[in-house]
Amino acid sequence: MHTTVAIIGGGPAGLLLARLLYRAGVDSVVLESRDRSYVERRQRAGILEQATTDVLRAAGAGDRLDREGLVHDGIELRFAGRAHRLDLPSLTGGRRVTVYAQTEVVKDLIALQLTDGGPLFFGAEVHSVEGAEGTRPVIRYTREGQEQTLTCDYAVGCDGFHGIARAAVPEAARTAYERTYPYSWLGILAEAPPVHDELIYAHSARGFALASMRTPAVSRLYLQVPNGTDPADWPDERIWDELDARLALEAQPDWRLRRGPVTQKSVLPMRSWVTEPMRHGRLFLAGDAAHIVPPAGAKGLNLAVSDVVVLARALELWHTTGSEALLEAYSDTCLRRVWRAEHFSWFMTTTLHTDPDRSPFDTRLQLAQLDRIASSPHAAAELAANYTGPPLTATG
Amino acid sequence: MHTTVAIIGGGPAGLLLARLLYRAGVDSVVLESRDRSYVERRQRAGILEQATTDVLRAAGAGDRLDREGLVHDGIELRFAGRAHRLDLPSLTGGRRVTVYAQTEVVKDLIALQLTDGGPLFFGAEVHSVEGAEGTRPVIRYTREGQEQTLTCDYAVGCDGFHGIARAAVPEAARTAYERTYPYSWLGILAEAPPVHDELIYAHSARGFALASMRTPAVSRLYLQVPNGTDPADWPDERIWDELDARLALEAQPDWRLRRGPVTQKSVLPMRSWVTEPMRHGRLFLAGDAAHIVPPAGAKGLNLAVSDVVVLARALELWHTTGSEALLEAYSDTCLRRVWRAEHFSWFMTTTLHTDPDRSPFDTRLQLAQLDRIASSPHAAAELAANYTGPPLTATG
Repeated sequence: MHTTVAIIGGGPAGLLLARLLYRAGVDSVVLESRDRSYVERRQRAGILEQATTDVLRAAGAGDRLDREGLVHDGIELRFAGRAHRLDLPSLTGGRRVTVYAQTEVVKDLIALQLTDGGPLFFGAEVHSVEGAEGTRPVIRYTREGQEQTLTCDYAVGCDGFHGIARAAVPEAARTAYERTYPYSWLGILAEAPPVHDELIYAHSARGFALASMRTPAVSRLYLQVPNGTDPADWPDERIWDELDARLALEAQPDWRLRRGPVTQKSVLPMRSWVTEPMRHGRLFLAGDAAHIVPPAGAKGLNLAVSDVVVLARALELWHTTGSEALLEAYSDTCLRRVWRAEHFSWFMTTTLHTDPDRSPFDTRLQLAQLDRIASSPHAAAELAANYTGPPLTATG
Repeated sequence: MHTTVAIIGGGPAGLLLARLLYRAGVDSVVLESRDRSYVERRQRAGILEQATTDVLRAAGAGDRLDREGLVHDGIELRFAGRAHRLDLPSLTGGRRVTVYAQTEVVKDLIALQLTDGGPLFFGAEVHSVEGAEGTRPVIRYTREGQEQTLTCDYAVGCDGFHGIARAAVPEAARTAYERTYPYSWLGILAEAPPVHDELIYAHSARGFALASMRTPAVSRLYLQVPNGTDPADWPDERIWDELDARLALEAQPDWRLRRGPVTQKSVLPMRSWVTEPMRHGRLFLAGDAAHIVPPAGAKGLNLAVSDVVVLARALELWHTTGSEALLEAYSDTCLRRVWRAEHFSWFMTTTLHTDPDRSPFDTRLQLAQLDRIASSPHAAAELAANYTGPPLTATG
């Protein structure tokens, strides 16, 4: 079998790329190792930048997003027992974010692709990507017990940090940049209405907490915990008590979260990681296959979207004119936005978490930074601009 | 002997405090352990915030400053072989900085004080500050071989990090916050015209460099070096070559500093440090006796000035009305500005220096931050606002 663009991985990056290519008249095949129901249940991010929602709408995946997505005009920072709201549109010239879970984006894109897109194969486990340095890469994979071969003009690895695609790039041809953190997140989904209609990011001497949501009836809540934490050590009541303690307000001592049944509980480690370049010959990497951000900046899904927008335009240009100019520029174009997001994600992470390896001096620096965001229009605008994300321009 | 305000230390903090009190009609005595010529030769900072020059003028110490000080409207950042200028007035609504060495400020203040101020004793070595918790502190010191006693209504420690005043605060009544850095500065004074009429802060894979100046004929230049560096290992030619390498511009390969005789060479370690609170009973701490910043933010002298402005106003209020309200607020008032400056100094230091303990990922974060300053008006304005310093208001 041959296709123009072979897409390895059917998460949001691969599915959106297939969608954008389909609308541009470029053939593609998506190979996803898991089955459909697994892919549709993976809990991931839930904050979409303005540019991300614009792209999803333009790709035809905006209907349910517009009906069910929760448009947020602000976020709240809590520190030193006080609350400070950042109004995103007034700080950014009108930009907002939308709460709409990645799983929902994935469901919408799968439904579209199966209705009128190119092939999307679930249970297709890729073993190797060969010939990236030539003109016709070869993908070998197993599906329904059969060994299969897919040849293509271009291959794209959208298969995440643990994926096979990056391994097809010789080690000498790539450089990894990495940072780990001495803490993880304990995340829960709870059938409880969110206590507040915007997200609350809390700095506390007890550790970071985040009160987020999935829908008006489902809360998504996170606690900073030590690496290696066993969720079994955190019974529901302990989680709720700790969330209340970390989110406490000096001026409203009776403030509490609304509690409800906890339906999912897991520990998420975090890392910062980038591989450069994001292209090797005719193999491109996009999304988590090329970069990981810690979740406090809510940038992971949004970066995957911006990667594939750049790549879809580049492939469309090549398809219609034969010019490889944008394909040549792909890695540099994406990496500018990637490093901006890496920096912002690191900034949010290290400003909000309690670092067991750091001193009381560093805690004072965090509070000085948070005070500054609450008092300096420029510091607030800088955070809001990064949080809502830059526009997606022709150069990325 | 008795005075209203006993000032320990005749550096810029102590001398300016004496000056401000004199103009407010409050008696003071300044005790400085060194002799006059030593004090007038100490090489320290040289960048005055807008508010600092305003205060010096208002204190009557502005004549030579206005004649000889070099008003700077910008600074240059160099990184990745490129230069980016920050225009301070346009980013801050008209604020500038002035290059005028601390030694010159000290000379001007000493001359004024000896002309028409209260007693300023050189060679007066303070041994103890007693009774800070009572109503009449007692300072014991030696001068010209004689043991002396000075009683006062209030004592002020302006005697720096190694001074005696802080030791008079019981350890249980103070908390220290500290951070050290794995690098120092090798600084030189050179009889060479500055290569550029504004300061150049350079990030380079070889380490940080700073091209500053004292006068239109004297350059002040710094290189990041490992802690424990012996200046003897850095012959002049090695210093010039290294400065040229770190300040190199990709687009101007022939760019070089102007070389000249090196008249002074020394290694400066750096630290961040704050002691809280800045008051114990009737003993106040100001300037380096209460806080140290690493030099990259040029904040040390400016913080000393803002401390004593707050303190002079508080003492004047007490002197004229008997109200201790501003004295009670002194520590909190100052610490807000101190922690802002600590954060900014840490930010400049860690953004510009090569940290031997950090990874290539962290270097990429530094470059992403510098790129952001060069491309985001908010990020640039935030740096410029911190660099030129906030106004000195009634609340600090």
